[in-house]
Amino acid sequence: MKCCEPVSLFYYEENKGGGEYQAMTQLTHFNEQGASRMVDVSKKEDTDRVAIAHAKIIMKPETFQLIMDKKIQKGDVLEVARVAGIMASKQTCTLVPMCHPLNLTSVKIDFTNNAVNEIDVLSEVRVTGKTGVEMEAITAAAVCAITIYDMCKAADKGMVISDIHLVKKTGGKSGTFIFDKDA
Amino acid sequence: MKCCEPVSLFYYEENKGGGEYQAMTQLTHFNEQGASRMVDVSKKEDTDRVAIAHAKIIMKPETFQLIMDKKIQKGDVLEVARVAGIMASKQTCTLVPMCHPLNLTSVKIDFTNNAVNEIDVLSEVRVTGKTGVEMEAITAAAVCAITIYDMCKAADKGMVISDIHLVKKTGGKSGTFIFDKDA
Amino acid sequence: MKCCEPVSLFYYEENKGGGEYQAMTQLTHFNEQGASRMVDVSKKEDTDRVAIAHAKIIMKPETFQLIMDKKIQKGDVLEVARVAGIMASKQTCTLVPMCHPLNLTSVKIDFTNNAVNEIDVLSEVRVTGKTGVEMEAITAAAVCAITIYDMCKAADKGMVISDIHLVKKTGGKSGTFIFDKDA
Amino acid sequence: MKCCEPVSLFYYEENKGGGEYQAMTQLTHFNEQGASRMVDVSKKEDTDRVAIAHAKIIMKPETFQLIMDKKIQKGDVLEVARVAGIMASKQTCTLVPMCHPLNLTSVKIDFTNNAVNEIDVLSEVRVTGKTGVEMEAITAAAVCAITIYDMCKAADKGMVISDIHLVKKTGGKSGTFIFDKDA
Amino acid sequence: MKCCEPVSLFYYEENKGGGEYQAMTQLTHFNEQGASRMVDVSKKEDTDRVAIAHAKIIMKPETFQLIMDKKIQKGDVLEVARVAGIMASKQTCTLVPMCHPLNLTSVKIDFTNNAVNEIDVLSEVRVTGKTGVEMEAITAAAVCAITIYDMCKAADKGMVISDIHLVKKTGGKSGTFIFDKDA
Amino acid sequence: MKCCEPVSLFYYEENKGGGEYQAMTQLTHFNEQGASRMVDVSKKEDTDRVAIAHAKIIMKPETFQLIMDKKIQKGDVLEVARVAGIMASKQTCTLVPMCHPLNLTSVKIDFTNNAVNEIDVLSEVRVTGKTGVEMEAITAAAVCAITIYDMCKAADKGMVISDIHLVKKTGGKSGTFIFDKDA
Repeated sequence: MKCCEPVSLFYYEENKGGGEYQAMTQLTHFNEQGASRMVDVSKKEDTDRVAIAHAKIIMKPETFQLIMDKKIQKGDVLEVARVAGIMASKQTCTLVPMCHPLNLTSVKIDFTNNAVNEIDVLSEVRVTGKTGVEMEAITAAAVCAITIYDMCKAADKGMVISDIHLVKKTGGKSGTFIFDKDA
Repeated sequence: MKCCEPVSLFYYEENKGGGEYQAMTQLTHFNEQGASRMVDVSKKEDTDRVAIAHAKIIMKPETFQLIMDKKIQKGDVLEVARVAGIMASKQTCTLVPMCHPLNLTSVKIDFTNNAVNEIDVLSEVRVTGKTGVEMEAITAAAVCAITIYDMCKAADKGMVISDIHLVKKTGGKSGTFIFDKDA
Repeated sequence: MKCCEPVSLFYYEENKGGGEYQAMTQLTHFNEQGASRMVDVSKKEDTDRVAIAHAKIIMKPETFQLIMDKKIQKGDVLEVARVAGIMASKQTCTLVPMCHPLNLTSVKIDFTNNAVNEIDVLSEVRVTGKTGVEMEAITAAAVCAITIYDMCKAADKGMVISDIHLVKKTGGKSGTFIFDKDA
Repeated sequence: MKCCEPVSLFYYEENKGGGEYQAMTQLTHFNEQGASRMVDVSKKEDTDRVAIAHAKIIMKPETFQLIMDKKIQKGDVLEVARVAGIMASKQTCTLVPMCHPLNLTSVKIDFTNNAVNEIDVLSEVRVTGKTGVEMEAITAAAVCAITIYDMCKAADKGMVISDIHLVKKTGGKSGTFIFDKDA
Repeated sequence: MKCCEPVSLFYYEENKGGGEYQAMTQLTHFNEQGASRMVDVSKKEDTDRVAIAHAKIIMKPETFQLIMDKKIQKGDVLEVARVAGIMASKQTCTLVPMCHPLNLTSVKIDFTNNAVNEIDVLSEVRVTGKTGVEMEAITAAAVCAITIYDMCKAADKGMVISDIHLVKKTGGKSGTFIFDKDA
Repeated sequence: MKCCEPVSLFYYEENKGGGEYQAMTQLTHFNEQGASRMVDVSKKEDTDRVAIAHAKIIMKPETFQLIMDKKIQKGDVLEVARVAGIMASKQTCTLVPMCHPLNLTSVKIDFTNNAVNEIDVLSEVRVTGKTGVEMEAITAAAVCAITIYDMCKAADKGMVISDIHLVKKTGGKSGTFIFDKDA
């Protein structure tokens, strides 16, 4: 009985002898049965790539005011959250299983807002590499917002993190993507 | 000129001599100037604590169908995302700067949905410890949703992760919290 | 259409209203549909636990002699491998998805051999906790042997790591296990 | 008394004065006394490199059947193990002390078997870089097999992981290596 | 030929048969040959422990002024360095090979100074556990100072980090230690 | 009320409609308000870069003698410390928030001394990349010295780590730096 034919990624050479296991000396090709894998980007060009992502955290106006007044017990909320987001972008490939490790060349995080009960997080990540940095930008924005939650949760456990999405990406074979909020 | 009086956490003993720097042999007390810190939980009891968190990812119905049909090239999306979320919960204190390291005793992630264009992620984390696992549950749910994004982004870059929030927590001095969506 | 009923871990309360998603305020119970999870050990006692594991690496006698003569270019093979194994035991829960984080109280690695073309690695790990340290001991032995491979691979790429198994474990509800090589 | 002459890696310039320690402004050359080090690959070319590794886990036929029937309590064993192996390959340089950090471009893991009491793990790793990915492939296969052990150990603590070895590598100055099981 | 008698940590039972390797079913005792190991603390009591450490970074007065004026291009130097030190304390056992993993209950970092060309870093770490947190406090102070270096190195590459030492520790069997700068 | 204008990194396009948040489809430029960020090196050339750093640890002559005699209980102090320093250099970008991830091509650590109560640590790190490895060399030397402290602290808690600084760096646009101890 074979255990794994339905998900087998490899074609094997013929067994070269009567030993305990097959000598698998050549993996010529991959089938398309959908087993999880880190997609092969070895034939792609190194190009300049940029990704921008967004996250929003919604809170009580009183919590927003505490952040603005720097009265949260754990410290300057936005500065700590920014550091957390930047550091998280560098951990993306250890968090997201199929992400490629990449030598990020730039990570920036900024904050803005459109109302007195929310903070918008914007992250921008750059790389010169064979694959894009969408996941790094999304991870940076998400962990930044999660850190805002952590810093303020003693005051407001009902905060909601929302609207995490890719804003824009450029570079690479698939070209430019711009988020269309009405799509 | 003193560099740091406004954010000084410590009161020092008197300088014991004329040396190059002060002999700081006793830290008696902490002021309240708000410098970032990992909050001291050393006097808290070890109690059983549970936290449940939620995240939602919204996508095109076609993408949802691809996941259901297990046709995404990178593998079984929900199973990989579940593993990613469980593993991320164990990395929480290396991602969120002021989180305490904890010996989690249980992590579970489940999926449900209310429409053909979304997946809801629910995480549940348990610990016997001096502080709660809200951040671990939120991190698990968020990274799980981010992994769904990664697994499907070749098909749908416009997915949005939303409604990340604590659903419920029990245990600890502050007692039970239940999310009120109308608050 | 529901996406995930077959693997659902949770039973939800009734939807409390007509909002965008359900208010999930109580997770009462877990079904047994086999979704991956970190097994709940929150009700288990903290007890003293020990696990011992073994790994063997087989090489050319000339390579063995190089190690004994400390002539490998990268350094003292066994000492570096020992450090690697000890450090890896502390990373077990970030490598093995369903492992619990634990505060290991002791890690030791030793080497022996029964022939001039092999080295046996023995690891011993201890903890006072709610779950055992079998995986920590196995990971320590395996990474120790992998490091021996790395240190010597310039001389001998055909080395084989073999016989990685639990030797013995004590403590915990399931009691003592002793490996039976004839089983 | 000098502490470290026998293992000194560097030749220093002459002490430039009578200060507390020597001004070491030039490291001109390295001796060959065998101190551990990450081998210098800075002069090597970036070339395409592939490595394939194997691991086998031997178990009771009943355990094998549980995996095939997806009846293991912790989840779909092979899928979780595959994710663990892929993620571990990205952690190789933090586990194996003298390994170089590398931007892996592809990681794949597959399963096969030759008997009803064993599973064979095959990993394939690719990179465009100055050094090969043998250790990444071996680490992926080993951690994948260790995770199978973890997922099944409640049913079968006597499983043995065996035959971890490099199957094939191509690329780089040392050219192609194919494992010869009869060597 | 035995490879490792001089550094063997274990005494083995008699070989139980003529198999390929010895069945090592009991590790009764450890010799004292000095092989590296994580010291066994499994018999120690869980007690409250505190450690305070210091580091100093010396710089040009102009650099000090840039930090005070928050004119460093990379951001608010002291706040970023504080976050880095707190996060590093949680990574201590992955950096220092023989350190035990611990559930830190409090980490604080503060800054002071005695001259216009230096900043003093003070860290305080607490735990309830079987071993102390001296290394966590020292790591926090050191990484905090290293981060100050990184944030300012575009302006001043000649900065020197100095006087990293334990200031005080309390708790545990060995009792209280207070640094004596004239020792 | 806007939360974050004073630290805003980005200029946004005009709001494209009346939606809940702005469509941020273009980041044209960065202001100079000093928010922390990983500096953008994406336009820099890949060049060969080398950095050498130093750290010193001062101890009681009796402790020094224990190290030389390899009588420290935890193992061969200098060899373990060397491995720790090499491994730490690869963790630099996860410790120092604004450091770029880099594929180090060489890491070496050596020891020397000028007196019977001190050990000097020298680290050398190389990379071919867009930014230098000063922080990796400093981190390697510092963690190596911290590990010496850990290995010996049972005998001597009063050890002091001192004189951590960059010794020399070459490569990159800013050219060569040589530490001037009299500066």
